[in-house]
Amino acid sequence: MKDIIIIGVGPAGISAAIYLKRAGLDPVVIGKDYGALSDYPEKVENYYGFGEPILGEDLIKEGINQAKRLGIEIIRDSVIALDQIDDHFKVKSVEHKFQSKTVVLATGKKRQTLSIPGFNKFKGKGISLCASCDGYFFRRKKIAVIGCGPYMAHELDVLKEINQDITVFTHGSPLLELVSFPVVTSKITRFLGTDKLEGIETEDGNIYQAQGIFVAIGAPSSIDFATKLGVVVEKNSLVVDHTYQTNIPGLFAIGDVIGGKLQIAKAVYDGMMVSDHIKTYLKSK
Amino acid sequence: MKDIIIIGVGPAGISAAIYLKRAGLDPVVIGKDYGALSDYPEKVENYYGFGEPILGEDLIKEGINQAKRLGIEIIRDSVIALDQIDDHFKVKSVEHKFQSKTVVLATGKKRQTLSIPGFNKFKGKGISLCASCDGYFFRRKKIAVIGCGPYMAHELDVLKEINQDITVFTHGSPLLELVSFPVVTSKITRFLGTDKLEGIETEDGNIYQAQGIFVAIGAPSSIDFATKLGVVVEKNSLVVDHTYQTNIPGLFAIGDVIGGKLQIAKAVYDGMMVSDHIKTYLKSK
Repeated sequence: MKDIIIIGVGPAGISAAIYLKRAGLDPVVIGKDYGALSDYPEKVENYYGFGEPILGEDLIKEGINQAKRLGIEIIRDSVIALDQIDDHFKVKSVEHKFQSKTVVLATGKKRQTLSIPGFNKFKGKGISLCASCDGYFFRRKKIAVIGCGPYMAHELDVLKEINQDITVFTHGSPLLELVSFPVVTSKITRFLGTDKLEGIETEDGNIYQAQGIFVAIGAPSSIDFATKLGVVVEKNSLVVDHTYQTNIPGLFAIGDVIGGKLQIAKAVYDGMMVSDHIKTYLKSK
Repeated sequence: MKDIIIIGVGPAGISAAIYLKRAGLDPVVIGKDYGALSDYPEKVENYYGFGEPILGEDLIKEGINQAKRLGIEIIRDSVIALDQIDDHFKVKSVEHKFQSKTVVLATGKKRQTLSIPGFNKFKGKGISLCASCDGYFFRRKKIAVIGCGPYMAHELDVLKEINQDITVFTHGSPLLELVSFPVVTSKITRFLGTDKLEGIETEDGNIYQAQGIFVAIGAPSSIDFATKLGVVVEKNSLVVDHTYQTNIPGLFAIGDVIGGKLQIAKAVYDGMMVSDHIKTYLKSK
């Protein structure tokens, strides 16, 4: 029986592991995907401490090495099931099975993607998945936001501080939020451009100029384990109390998956903070 | 008139500057000392993202370079005075003067202190850390100012309006400023007195009468500035609300100086979080 299994090898999970290890505990970290950061095509510029921008993927690797250096056990495997049995948890990955008194969910939120011609070509060259990350680069450009719900509205809130030349594309979905910008509801058929993004072509044959596109469709999500266990989810985020504990005793969640700012600094902070609460929880058992 | 001046070049201040800049604002960061991290003899192992441990001093340098790369104005100078005038602030450093709508205190927790016998005993009973706060109480007493640089000179400027019976003690350091008062360069070995401060003993065996001593070594800390402005301080931390604002509108504080975990991850998080609140504050003006 393990004391602590952390699912996720990103900033939140590794930061938690580092603080727990240094507090004399023995966390095990399991995860394969690098999560949101590995998809992120731009280098990271806004996480403190790096004179030169660092690729998300490289940052994740640094974090894993940092944890290993401290003697933390890291298992590079995909977790495929998480179950609760009595007062503990069963964690099943492709190649391993564990039991643990506590589990920390730190797998992040699946990021946006679109199967539209040009999406992959222009991702990072005009197409962005994060308004607060990249909005500033497009402060004097024509901007499009793709989405129809609260996530789109949120990105719009961020962007309108920087730029007023914004059009919302719902990509065929009904608009669920009131917005004060032009709205195009026709489906997007293609992203246009040569080296850089230049425009959007829609099903009705129109072409719209756009140098920056922010994708914010539906909600950014991957919360299957938690949903299955009956964790309270609100607005596509796991609900946790002030100790980062979900409504299931011993099940903690940190990082993007609990919402708030989807930022490395916040994930790292969560990881630091949860360690104290896990110590307290284990002591109370 | 600047929008935002951040005092402090450590993790909290630089993180705030990065987020503000990327939100389209134009923060100016002023600071000279590296703060707590530079004194820290061990390498940093628990701040996420470094496969190899990093010296605190090197981390600070990385952060400064990171900010500069983003076009943030960084002024390597000691702030020696902060005053509130109407609805804005005047910031004075050794070589510059600024006015700003908001100020962020991020200089860490280091306070003026001296490991000299009698210091703690007479702190508040003759030994003061703020000339403009306490100078008036000593208007008819013998006063000593301890310090050798611009901060000392600034405190002297304040005090000489109130009292002319002043001696400057450099406590073994070379005098860096021209002053029109007697100067003692010998090291201080003891503060003398029974209930109240009565004098200063120096290494060369001399004893000087003094009922009031003002310590002005190096540069003032955030707590020193804040105390002078009437910010509520509890347990040696500045009290801020959930927006990181002190009881003085437009004066924000982040990092070690507001207490909580004295950790880099927390300081960086504070910096990220305060940026939104500063944007909101500036917009409300």
